[in-house]
Amino acid sequence: MSGSTFGKLFRITTWGESHGPGIGVVIDGCPAGLPLCEEDIQRFLDRRRPGQSRYTTKRNEADAVEILSGVFEGKTTGTPISLLVRNQDQRSRDYGNIASLFRPGHADYPFTEKYGFRDYRGGGRSSGRETIGRVAAGAVAAKMLEELGITVRAYTRSIGPFHIPDEKVDLSQVGKNSLYMPDCATAEKAGEYIASLMAEKDSCGGIVECIADGLPAGLGETVFDKLDALLAQAVMSIGAVKGVEFGDGFAAAASTGSQNNDPFFSEDGVISKKSNHAGGVLGGMSDGSRLVLRAAVKPTSSIARTQQTVSVTGDNSEITVHGRHDPVIVPRAVVVVESMTAVTIADLLLQNMTANMDHVRKVYL
Amino acid sequence: MSGSTFGKLFRITTWGESHGPGIGVVIDGCPAGLPLCEEDIQRFLDRRRPGQSRYTTKRNEADAVEILSGVFEGKTTGTPISLLVRNQDQRSRDYGNIASLFRPGHADYPFTEKYGFRDYRGGGRSSGRETIGRVAAGAVAAKMLEELGITVRAYTRSIGPFHIPDEKVDLSQVGKNSLYMPDCATAEKAGEYIASLMAEKDSCGGIVECIADGLPAGLGETVFDKLDALLAQAVMSIGAVKGVEFGDGFAAAASTGSQNNDPFFSEDGVISKKSNHAGGVLGGMSDGSRLVLRAAVKPTSSIARTQQTVSVTGDNSEITVHGRHDPVIVPRAVVVVESMTAVTIADLLLQNMTANMDHVRKVYL
Amino acid sequence: MSGSTFGKLFRITTWGESHGPGIGVVIDGCPAGLPLCEEDIQRFLDRRRPGQSRYTTKRNEADAVEILSGVFEGKTTGTPISLLVRNQDQRSRDYGNIASLFRPGHADYPFTEKYGFRDYRGGGRSSGRETIGRVAAGAVAAKMLEELGITVRAYTRSIGPFHIPDEKVDLSQVGKNSLYMPDCATAEKAGEYIASLMAEKDSCGGIVECIADGLPAGLGETVFDKLDALLAQAVMSIGAVKGVEFGDGFAAAASTGSQNNDPFFSEDGVISKKSNHAGGVLGGMSDGSRLVLRAAVKPTSSIARTQQTVSVTGDNSEITVHGRHDPVIVPRAVVVVESMTAVTIADLLLQNMTANMDHVRKVYL
Amino acid sequence: MSGSTFGKLFRITTWGESHGPGIGVVIDGCPAGLPLCEEDIQRFLDRRRPGQSRYTTKRNEADAVEILSGVFEGKTTGTPISLLVRNQDQRSRDYGNIASLFRPGHADYPFTEKYGFRDYRGGGRSSGRETIGRVAAGAVAAKMLEELGITVRAYTRSIGPFHIPDEKVDLSQVGKNSLYMPDCATAEKAGEYIASLMAEKDSCGGIVECIADGLPAGLGETVFDKLDALLAQAVMSIGAVKGVEFGDGFAAAASTGSQNNDPFFSEDGVISKKSNHAGGVLGGMSDGSRLVLRAAVKPTSSIARTQQTVSVTGDNSEITVHGRHDPVIVPRAVVVVESMTAVTIADLLLQNMTANMDHVRKVYL
Repeated sequence: MSGSTFGKLFRITTWGESHGPGIGVVIDGCPAGLPLCEEDIQRFLDRRRPGQSRYTTKRNEADAVEILSGVFEGKTTGTPISLLVRNQDQRSRDYGNIASLFRPGHADYPFTEKYGFRDYRGGGRSSGRETIGRVAAGAVAAKMLEELGITVRAYTRSIGPFHIPDEKVDLSQVGKNSLYMPDCATAEKAGEYIASLMAEKDSCGGIVECIADGLPAGLGETVFDKLDALLAQAVMSIGAVKGVEFGDGFAAAASTGSQNNDPFFSEDGVISKKSNHAGGVLGGMSDGSRLVLRAAVKPTSSIARTQQTVSVTGDNSEITVHGRHDPVIVPRAVVVVESMTAVTIADLLLQNMTANMDHVRKVYL
Repeated sequence: MSGSTFGKLFRITTWGESHGPGIGVVIDGCPAGLPLCEEDIQRFLDRRRPGQSRYTTKRNEADAVEILSGVFEGKTTGTPISLLVRNQDQRSRDYGNIASLFRPGHADYPFTEKYGFRDYRGGGRSSGRETIGRVAAGAVAAKMLEELGITVRAYTRSIGPFHIPDEKVDLSQVGKNSLYMPDCATAEKAGEYIASLMAEKDSCGGIVECIADGLPAGLGETVFDKLDALLAQAVMSIGAVKGVEFGDGFAAAASTGSQNNDPFFSEDGVISKKSNHAGGVLGGMSDGSRLVLRAAVKPTSSIARTQQTVSVTGDNSEITVHGRHDPVIVPRAVVVVESMTAVTIADLLLQNMTANMDHVRKVYL
Repeated sequence: MSGSTFGKLFRITTWGESHGPGIGVVIDGCPAGLPLCEEDIQRFLDRRRPGQSRYTTKRNEADAVEILSGVFEGKTTGTPISLLVRNQDQRSRDYGNIASLFRPGHADYPFTEKYGFRDYRGGGRSSGRETIGRVAAGAVAAKMLEELGITVRAYTRSIGPFHIPDEKVDLSQVGKNSLYMPDCATAEKAGEYIASLMAEKDSCGGIVECIADGLPAGLGETVFDKLDALLAQAVMSIGAVKGVEFGDGFAAAASTGSQNNDPFFSEDGVISKKSNHAGGVLGGMSDGSRLVLRAAVKPTSSIARTQQTVSVTGDNSEITVHGRHDPVIVPRAVVVVESMTAVTIADLLLQNMTANMDHVRKVYL
Repeated sequence: MSGSTFGKLFRITTWGESHGPGIGVVIDGCPAGLPLCEEDIQRFLDRRRPGQSRYTTKRNEADAVEILSGVFEGKTTGTPISLLVRNQDQRSRDYGNIASLFRPGHADYPFTEKYGFRDYRGGGRSSGRETIGRVAAGAVAAKMLEELGITVRAYTRSIGPFHIPDEKVDLSQVGKNSLYMPDCATAEKAGEYIASLMAEKDSCGGIVECIADGLPAGLGETVFDKLDALLAQAVMSIGAVKGVEFGDGFAAAASTGSQNNDPFFSEDGVISKKSNHAGGVLGGMSDGSRLVLRAAVKPTSSIARTQQTVSVTGDNSEITVHGRHDPVIVPRAVVVVESMTAVTIADLLLQNMTANMDHVRKVYL
């Protein structure tokens, strides 16, 4: 698995298993001179921490971050920033069942096929705790973007069948419900739905939407490393994500050119678009409008119902996954999507600095 | 733009503009000893060639490929394979209009913002002709996969609002209609729809579906370079794609865990799944089932209707895009999606060779 | 500084400053199923540890390594191996002098020009302690190579003007003197020389030689990622190294083709060479003979003599570098050169697995 | 062989074999807006062209370059620059001898071991003609550096035993002799020496020195991607190079700290060094002084004398290498070393743009 690094210039390398000593990330390429402290990062980590509402696992981890390198006297030094979160709640228990059976919906089977065996404790590297490194890195990226006037925000757009239509989206409500939805009324209904699924030992999924404002036009490299292509990789690489779309996304496939094209117009010397079906990306580059992406998150795979499966020795069997599991991981995925988006934008922002000789001359001449 | 390379071990680097001398690709890392000739590649290129039906542009290019390196006596040598397609139909004409205006839905505006100016002839690097390099590389990847019993096939799943439901998908019909749809009846209706849009100087989009069979379980690296994450990048990086999903994709977000989990079962010593909501990917790795992905393709941006836009000097203006343009690019995107899928799988297949010491010992001891 | 990662498949990312909380490395891409424990790594770290002889600094660090991830039940899992060494001896002292002056021979000046400021405590990221991560990774690489019958050994070939000629090299003596020289007689003279320099507040350099046995022919990629090219990067990237050569190296430049070419011969079906002027590398690939490289290590830059320099404010000044400094770092550099060589070979060994279709078929068919 | 790409932001990918249709390079990441025409590149290629003096092969190739992409109206567009040189002089001849025997000093044996077979015509990918792509890319890099006041120059410092001491180096003489030596008197003696070797069917090597002026302090990434480390890779990756050193290089290993350290001083607000034993690199970064590197080039391996070798079937045999071969390749290697140095500096110059927030703000705020 040499695929634990993401980014070309703002590069993050995550490591760590669910039940090992800890989880962490090394950020290499963060420019020097950015103010940074542990609190900046902790704030992000606290948003993904379990045990915060009745819809998240009871596992109670402080998930306290330690900056091991790369910061001196409150500023980044330009050297790798190593961040460590110790695993605390590794309560010893019997993993026998999970050790010998492949859980449906989980990485157990292909992981074993790939590596020959697996760390069966809590999903090992494929655990949701892997996202701790992503979120810690996202906090640093967001800090850098903030300095340049760029903000990235994610929230829950739908839970199971409960979807918030455009006209009801009110970002000021995101912080007012534990599902991080921009509409408290929908959040309430969604909460009831989740409660009913919990009673049935079932789970659900949802859609996370992420927006970014303040992007200069031109971010993104024009062939394989397009803004939307790298964001698609970044977001699809989050455990339970099964789909990613930009702007009108799949709906655009059923539209027409005359409806889907966003006309440009100019006002007071500023070029804008009259609509944003494109979600802020044209030809793989930011177009100056709001970036809009959505990620489809599948229902939590760990459910307490008995399911049919196969053992590591190839025998048909049944499995009942016990333990602490979120009936829906969407609310905790919100900050992960936001983090991966911030990391991707930060990287492309640095890459874009070398796009033309005018930029080069600004720095050196 | 240092983003013209894709892949870690099976690496492709594309180059070329719509109206420059040619278009090409360098494939570095194709294993030695693979039988390969120009005809293998030409067959793929012919599938994306314009001028083949009434729904594609009249631009008549032979798009004949020349192998410039990396093949000796009919086999790959392990050295870079350089492929060249000369642009032939560069009919001289007046680009004045396009040179001075930003076409809605196109890369013109962000491209100019990024680089300071642009090659305005036919979209330059952001032209659809950029995909020639992808398809040529895809042909080589497909040849390698074929040797290992892996097949990749793409087709048109929907055109505008005309979608083929699961029960009507018949892959044997794909080659029997010019839209590459696995249901000739839907294809006929879609054809009429396209004709009506052409009359209205409008365009439409659609959905390309791609499947891969024969993948061993375990392909894909488990964090950022997951099979689905890299495929998402690969496919989203194709010009007009606005969304990518795997298996049930966005529909999974509205499902429940008990419905969405695919139970494993064992028969005659072979482990399989009873359903395939996951689309063949678990934890970012192939799970031995059929890989299923879908790409949402937006409507062609170039339409002959008059649209509002802005000039490069920032003045409000109108634009009418003349020239030869496909009313729908979906049929031609089919082979591009298939090619990017093949390239991604080929790369991950090579990466996976080093996953465990058993593989290492098989090669060296 | 996004340059803290080395390797394409066996990838190491180091982090940490001399006087921060710790130093470490993340190894991504080590194949699963390799037996590994902390003792394997500690053994290597102990070889570079200070305070072991009168020629090394008195700084007494245990440099105890902790495996934070990637190992389960005594074997690598295929996931990133994160290794941490806490800095223990961070004795608080007055850095005022070094903080405000640029030390000759050190990175202080260009570091400040690059990043705008620097962590002046003990060299920060440019400290010799940065090599801890390299050595920890080297231990893991060496463990893997050992499984495949490949051994890498480094030793001190010369100290200042005291050079061991070919005919006196006796590898069995390397472990019998604290300078790690393959000739105890030369080591004794070198020791006296070092003592005399210490008395004069001066320092010296030397040459580290590294050999690798058991390499299969064909390792190394044939253009930019040649075996010798990547080893040159790997070894030149070690702090004080100013030159790298293979086989006869610079002496080859004064030789003739008839002398320098190594004739091949065959015996009992095994192809070998009658001489090894090439140092085991032909066309950038291993040729089956012993790999031989040498690294020129400059004299320790930190000397207690007063030197002329400039302050961070640009004023001419004098500096006397106090503190604990090795009069010669060559003996401690031995294990670092060995480690970087092992890491590079491990990476190229994995890369070479995908060189031809026969290898691919061995793994998959 | 996925190792045909060099550089992170200014990335070059070379391709092509000696006797295939052509040789070329794709440069991805050159900033937009750099004036560039074919003549800029041809000038560099003409310097490495064979047939220019009695010491180089008689093979008479025009080596005319064609720009296939990435330049529009005389300026780079920011998209990949594809450069093609057709092989013209592919005179058909009998390669039987070389096809079945491994030439001493050549890549034939390890190449065959690696890939299973080889293109035996003129060395295939391991031919000296592979450097055409490097030189074409070097011309573009040099053009960019020139805009920023940076010049890179290489020349022959020694031929066989004929070495030019520091006090005789006169750069104005480099262009006045066909060996590109900065001392015509030594060049004359070296020429006689080469003539005598030609009479004996033998060959010789030499040392190329390369200097760069005008580098800002701070170029180079501080751990693995140090300026000297990447230059070592870049230069060692040139076919016949067996050693690389910076500043005093191997001589520094025999020096002392008090002699080897370069004192800083300040004059009129400019910080400089009183000496340059370091060759312009401190801690892996440029220090504002002249960059000085040397490459040891081995004697030409192709000699007309009969040599002992082994056949591809493993039988002992003799070989006499006929054909057109340089008795010394050093003069033609000069522009290759210069090109690789320019490419490396160009890449690190772009990377360095993102080193600190001040640079970021200069571009975006």
